[in-house]
Amino acid sequence: LLDDLPETVEVIDVGKAPGHHAVPQDEINRIIVEHAERGRTVVRLKGGDPYLFGRGGEEVQACAARGIPVDVVPGVSSALAAPAAAGIPLTHRGVVGAAHIAHGHGTLAEAAVRAVVEGSATLVVLMGVALLAQHVEQLLAAGADPDTPVAVVENATLPAQRVTRAPLLGIVEAAEGAGVAAPAVVVVGAVAAPGLLEEP
Amino acid sequence: LLDDLPETVEVIDVGKAPGHHAVPQDEINRIIVEHAERGRTVVRLKGGDPYLFGRGGEEVQACAARGIPVDVVPGVSSALAAPAAAGIPLTHRGVVGAAHIAHGHGTLAEAAVRAVVEGSATLVVLMGVALLAQHVEQLLAAGADPDTPVAVVENATLPAQRVTRAPLLGIVEAAEGAGVAAPAVVVVGAVAAPGLLEEP
Repeated sequence: LLDDLPETVEVIDVGKAPGHHAVPQDEINRIIVEHAERGRTVVRLKGGDPYLFGRGGEEVQACAARGIPVDVVPGVSSALAAPAAAGIPLTHRGVVGAAHIAHGHGTLAEAAVRAVVEGSATLVVLMGVALLAQHVEQLLAAGADPDTPVAVVENATLPAQRVTRAPLLGIVEAAEGAGVAAPAVVVVGAVAAPGLLEEP
Repeated sequence: LLDDLPETVEVIDVGKAPGHHAVPQDEINRIIVEHAERGRTVVRLKGGDPYLFGRGGEEVQACAARGIPVDVVPGVSSALAAPAAAGIPLTHRGVVGAAHIAHGHGTLAEAAVRAVVEGSATLVVLMGVALLAQHVEQLLAAGADPDTPVAVVENATLPAQRVTRAPLLGIVEAAEGAGVAAPAVVVVGAVAAPGLLEEP
């Protein structure tokens, strides 16, 4: 994509490629504003959706503070796309009719726990590998069914994509055994069961 | 888009355009399978995301039952795009770090209510206009802050887009006064406050 741009376009990489030290958000905001104030049209290209763990709101605020108009284009969030790549619908008639999308940094909120315990919403945890064991313990302690299906989707849509599935009670052992590592999306709920979409 | 297709492509409209009686899901499944079994390549084109209230799972099941291979392409869900069109990020650093996406048919699940009461996740209700008053009553009765910001986004991204905002306690009166009608997306939580993105 970037290679097809005309040479008049300046490309500034602020991304989080492996081994590449990410540019802090404040610095990204500053770069956007600086170039816009030079009269340039700035495209801030992100993976996923800018407003779901994308920090797009902060960039819009930085521009608004300087009177710079912004158009925001929604994207395909990994919260939906990673489960989809593993054949997991977030909602499915007769199974579950809501989705709760959280990040994995810290304790799960009560609402996220309730979603799993009552089976009312599929829980999607982005960046959820590091604290997977803690989250599973929290869910089980709150009364979640130990048989609740869980899927961990690593490297979604890439050639290295891998899906590790197990019931809630066994997912930590399964993930450790498989050497599951970030980037990965954790899906908890009936829709994560193996074979859901294989039979009507 | 459809006008650009070659004449060899058969277009079957099963959509929900206004005044157009929608084709039942079972019939859609049957049409997909029928044409695939004639050896055709079938593209099932949907608005939004096929796996978040898109009933894509049912269509995949119908194909799987007949051994028909399917590729699923994730989309831009109105659960994210409608708030974005109104300038509302679903997550925002220092404000809220999760999103709970539900439909508005029936009582809100306890997890959805908890999300609002504890302020841990932005609540997005699709198809939420008809039962808005009931949901607001349910949230207030559960202890939600009456000042919790609410935004109702009608006709998102269309020329007729309109955003009606009020605190939880006043949103029903505001929506009724404005004559709010479907299609609309309801967003409940601090990120729905007017002017959130206008100042850093």
